[in-house]
Amino acid sequence: MAKKNRDELRPVSLTRSFTKHAHGSVLIKQGDTWVLCTACAEDKVPPFLKGTGRGWVTAEYSLLPGATATRKPRERAGKPDSRSTEISRLVGRALRAAVDLSMLGERTITIDCDVLQADGGTRCASITGGMAALEDAIAKLLAEGKLSANPLRRRVAAVSVGIDGSGPLLDLDYEADSTAGTDMNFVMTDRGEYVEIQGTAEGTPFTAAQFDAMRGLAAKGIRDLFAAIDGRRG
Amino acid sequence: MAKKNRDELRPVSLTRSFTKHAHGSVLIKQGDTWVLCTACAEDKVPPFLKGTGRGWVTAEYSLLPGATATRKPRERAGKPDSRSTEISRLVGRALRAAVDLSMLGERTITIDCDVLQADGGTRCASITGGMAALEDAIAKLLAEGKLSANPLRRRVAAVSVGIDGSGPLLDLDYEADSTAGTDMNFVMTDRGEYVEIQGTAEGTPFTAAQFDAMRGLAAKGIRDLFAAIDGRRG
Amino acid sequence: MAKKNRDELRPVSLTRSFTKHAHGSVLIKQGDTWVLCTACAEDKVPPFLKGTGRGWVTAEYSLLPGATATRKPRERAGKPDSRSTEISRLVGRALRAAVDLSMLGERTITIDCDVLQADGGTRCASITGGMAALEDAIAKLLAEGKLSANPLRRRVAAVSVGIDGSGPLLDLDYEADSTAGTDMNFVMTDRGEYVEIQGTAEGTPFTAAQFDAMRGLAAKGIRDLFAAIDGRRG
Amino acid sequence: MAKKNRDELRPVSLTRSFTKHAHGSVLIKQGDTWVLCTACAEDKVPPFLKGTGRGWVTAEYSLLPGATATRKPRERAGKPDSRSTEISRLVGRALRAAVDLSMLGERTITIDCDVLQADGGTRCASITGGMAALEDAIAKLLAEGKLSANPLRRRVAAVSVGIDGSGPLLDLDYEADSTAGTDMNFVMTDRGEYVEIQGTAEGTPFTAAQFDAMRGLAAKGIRDLFAAIDGRRG
Amino acid sequence: MAKKNRDELRPVSLTRSFTKHAHGSVLIKQGDTWVLCTACAEDKVPPFLKGTGRGWVTAEYSLLPGATATRKPRERAGKPDSRSTEISRLVGRALRAAVDLSMLGERTITIDCDVLQADGGTRCASITGGMAALEDAIAKLLAEGKLSANPLRRRVAAVSVGIDGSGPLLDLDYEADSTAGTDMNFVMTDRGEYVEIQGTAEGTPFTAAQFDAMRGLAAKGIRDLFAAIDGRRG
Amino acid sequence: MAKKNRDELRPVSLTRSFTKHAHGSVLIKQGDTWVLCTACAEDKVPPFLKGTGRGWVTAEYSLLPGATATRKPRERAGKPDSRSTEISRLVGRALRAAVDLSMLGERTITIDCDVLQADGGTRCASITGGMAALEDAIAKLLAEGKLSANPLRRRVAAVSVGIDGSGPLLDLDYEADSTAGTDMNFVMTDRGEYVEIQGTAEGTPFTAAQFDAMRGLAAKGIRDLFAAIDGRRG
Repeated sequence: MAKKNRDELRPVSLTRSFTKHAHGSVLIKQGDTWVLCTACAEDKVPPFLKGTGRGWVTAEYSLLPGATATRKPRERAGKPDSRSTEISRLVGRALRAAVDLSMLGERTITIDCDVLQADGGTRCASITGGMAALEDAIAKLLAEGKLSANPLRRRVAAVSVGIDGSGPLLDLDYEADSTAGTDMNFVMTDRGEYVEIQGTAEGTPFTAAQFDAMRGLAAKGIRDLFAAIDGRRG
Repeated sequence: MAKKNRDELRPVSLTRSFTKHAHGSVLIKQGDTWVLCTACAEDKVPPFLKGTGRGWVTAEYSLLPGATATRKPRERAGKPDSRSTEISRLVGRALRAAVDLSMLGERTITIDCDVLQADGGTRCASITGGMAALEDAIAKLLAEGKLSANPLRRRVAAVSVGIDGSGPLLDLDYEADSTAGTDMNFVMTDRGEYVEIQGTAEGTPFTAAQFDAMRGLAAKGIRDLFAAIDGRRG
Repeated sequence: MAKKNRDELRPVSLTRSFTKHAHGSVLIKQGDTWVLCTACAEDKVPPFLKGTGRGWVTAEYSLLPGATATRKPRERAGKPDSRSTEISRLVGRALRAAVDLSMLGERTITIDCDVLQADGGTRCASITGGMAALEDAIAKLLAEGKLSANPLRRRVAAVSVGIDGSGPLLDLDYEADSTAGTDMNFVMTDRGEYVEIQGTAEGTPFTAAQFDAMRGLAAKGIRDLFAAIDGRRG
Repeated sequence: MAKKNRDELRPVSLTRSFTKHAHGSVLIKQGDTWVLCTACAEDKVPPFLKGTGRGWVTAEYSLLPGATATRKPRERAGKPDSRSTEISRLVGRALRAAVDLSMLGERTITIDCDVLQADGGTRCASITGGMAALEDAIAKLLAEGKLSANPLRRRVAAVSVGIDGSGPLLDLDYEADSTAGTDMNFVMTDRGEYVEIQGTAEGTPFTAAQFDAMRGLAAKGIRDLFAAIDGRRG
Repeated sequence: MAKKNRDELRPVSLTRSFTKHAHGSVLIKQGDTWVLCTACAEDKVPPFLKGTGRGWVTAEYSLLPGATATRKPRERAGKPDSRSTEISRLVGRALRAAVDLSMLGERTITIDCDVLQADGGTRCASITGGMAALEDAIAKLLAEGKLSANPLRRRVAAVSVGIDGSGPLLDLDYEADSTAGTDMNFVMTDRGEYVEIQGTAEGTPFTAAQFDAMRGLAAKGIRDLFAAIDGRRG
Repeated sequence: MAKKNRDELRPVSLTRSFTKHAHGSVLIKQGDTWVLCTACAEDKVPPFLKGTGRGWVTAEYSLLPGATATRKPRERAGKPDSRSTEISRLVGRALRAAVDLSMLGERTITIDCDVLQADGGTRCASITGGMAALEDAIAKLLAEGKLSANPLRRRVAAVSVGIDGSGPLLDLDYEADSTAGTDMNFVMTDRGEYVEIQGTAEGTPFTAAQFDAMRGLAAKGIRDLFAAIDGRRG
């Protein structure tokens, strides 16, 4: 799964309609990171939206126990995993930015992102794959006449960028991520605008110049990602 | 995914080494039921085995939220699903019967059975697929020199049989299962012996003669299942 | 509490109306296994039955902490016991088979099976004692005019059979159960039909012939159990 | 279960060795309140006592679901019942006062008080019955040579007193308790000293004179209780 | 924070309107024990009061992790602290005694008592401070026209008394509490009547005479407490 | 608590040694947002650090129930709040960046950030106040001789910036935050480098130019924050 250049994505593929029950079901593979993203629509909303006519989009992220090098215990026993909670919230925020919730009706679309195999960048792949599943679910609701107008207002995708000893690096796999001093995730639209920026200096703090180099790489990665998605869909 | 005869299995396929991290990873498809079975070995045992030199085999069964026609909430919030608990215990018992635990060392092999798509017979597919993942994990431990002798003492597989208005029926899909009055699961060895029998009359109780018809069908199904597995492996 | 023959039940007694609040309350003693079975009717049903006019029967099985040789911690701290979950589901399925739920009205009868003292066969005693508590609760609802017709369509009871070094053995106590290679539970009607069969080979798998010997013993045990219950009720 | 006078206990009986596994097992009946108290000794102590050579006595109180007029849901689902928690702590404190923990060795005795039938005064019956179970458990540990000297330093029992429209009343049943404006529980030794006093004015606050009347009644009740226990044991 | 005499309170201060959002917010300092008591009114009641027109007052007590000499883990992970549960119930009972719930409307006032710094007597300070927060919340509801008549029927406060080697002692700090053999809490009205008495002999049982000495000290402490509160408010 | 200009912080104050038990205890007030930050050192580390000689810094963020306009239920009942989980992780990451964990010994410092009153920017105030508490705790460990060299390698602080109809705005209170379309949090060092950037477009995505305006404002805010902290300490 080698890639030649530091500004290149790992090989990306999306399989639409991977499973049959959910309204949208996409298996995204980005290098050795595989995430199954399903989108299920239900005719109910959280309490704070009841009676408002507005809908909701939310996400749940989870690693299958066998997805990582060391088996990860399930969250069953009342001990939710705080990393998964944080990522679920990020994916939900990112996908809500793609939808005009007032056009969705009192309906919730839940995007489940279950990581079958993890090799870095699982939260970004969840957003990119989740966007595709969300699009497919909305297309199905439109085709079934449950929605009369398309509530999608933009498309989003996400990519990670890091800094290691050789400088900025696009789309880190697990090994690269482990050695990088800074790890940033960019959620962007197909017009190059920002929906979410989240980055942490795990070792040395980073400078404004380093940030600028990373956002340049991210912009290129997002363009390549949309090209890859659309090329594979055409 | 039609099948012609009432004593026929749905199409079965097993993909070995489906993912890369776990010691064994098998995607089993039986009709539209898809289960990802991973086997992970860890150098620890439950408290009651500490210091005994014996090992343990256990299983965890779970449905992905998008695997069913209606989204199934995750078990996160401290409310374990009692059906999943019952099936996890069944799969664990069945697979322990395949192994001489005294030859495993103080080591636990956990078989995670995550249903990607459900269409009836998920517990049986978990046992059959889990057996393959367990075999692969043990082969890997032998190859790595972590085990000096093969602790497998037999192979097991499982199949469901039901009774509907037309009589006994092998390998029920979800629709057939919903209408069947009786639903039995047979866990058997490749020599035709029984490891577990579990059957429930959901409507009318069944007679000894009906049971005998079901066990005949199960024996044929188990033979066909082992043939399918080995044919695909050869 | 010795018994002379391998095809004999341990001494069985049922005390009806053991406590005063529940609609049915039965203390069943089978050898040194004592289970308090109470049946409580409530005017509510699970969500999936609301508005259907149908009722529900469910069961909860639990061991008191002091019921076993080693104190068993309570399930309080959000860690439900998976064995209890499995048995609760078995008892509930068995007792639902005795009732025409469409004649029960939108009402739930919960059978609580609390083991005061455990010496093997607690799940079978829970079913047999639970059936008596359920009968008493329904008789009370009929007497109070809350039910206009009897929804009971059959009576069920349950017995365990095992195989040890000397062959098949009826109604195992804890010590016998610990040494038996196979342990089966038969839930049957008073007409000798099967409601549930559940058996596991903990050591060597069992053959069809061994199964046939066990089911013969079970049929005798069930007959003796109904005789004992009715003799004591007369 | 009528009683003639306001300063009289309801009929009291204690059955020792009610079940066989626990070190002590007492069924106490006080009127229609029945509590099964078992005492189990285990060779472990809470973390704060490890290495100190001291032991621990603790209690757990629980109502069986069918013990009350309306079925009480179990505490399984991670929602511990706060009333049970408070009573468990009271019973534990009361029984620790009876024991010199430094003579117990690094050992925990757990007193489980499971209410089979509730009709008022269950916390007091749990203390009185729990004391008997604790005595029996200690007698067994002495007989087995696990203890070389008797760590019991006093005996305790408990009784409730209330105030209703007619003045102070000893040993309230559920109906009396529901109408009483004040409810006090006295835990006392067989020498008439206080181990715990706990009383609440649910309606009108009470005066010092009313308190004095209640403590007089309690002193009589405790004397009668010890007489009843010892009379029945003789 | 020394005090001169054994029948003296530690220095007491109450800051009203400490924070701005809650209907009542009081920071009570009693020696080095600091408790933030907030009272929040909500237009909902527990299920058992729905449709009755009556209201509810309840309390929740909690220690901040850094409030004690050793950090106390939060209760987050599904393990509620049983001491906090017991104290929450005590505070709730005490404050309900101050209110005519039938005059409150279908409304719940929750008193949150969060201990910022603990040095003994936190439960008593929670009651005294909680009473002030409750008074302020009711005053606000009256001012806003949400209540038409004042539902307060009395004022309560609480104080601890103990017995150490030198006899009875009022208002114990943590060190005194640790060495005292008996620890009693008195919840009393401003007219000197009792709302709750709760006392435990942790070492030697106490006598009636010792109890009388303690209640005398408590009566003085309660008088001084009301004087201090009102002096600071005037 | 008005502020004159859009590039101005709300009034900031830090009270050191606010409570007495924790190693560091700081009450930070930023406008009407008040957070009590305590730092407690314990001689234990998470399992993955045992035997490594390295230490750990972690944080827990929580809102007191009465801190917000509507009472916020506690997390007690096994339902952790996902927003709090996300913020706890952010604060922990930010403060770990300030410390050389290899110089801390096998010791954990937990920063508890309990929000007494919330008015926007609570996560940033938790980081700024938590840094001060951490500094004080380390100073105490150095003074006590438990650390031989100072493990602090830099100071961090945090500030929020948003975009509303009038452009970028520094240090948003709750009302401003509710209307802002974008909300970013900058964690920076006293040298102006970045430790964490986290920003979300809740409405319209933001452009690179808008981001640059926000980071300019953040840099000024961080400088003012350090000046305020040090001015108040001098």
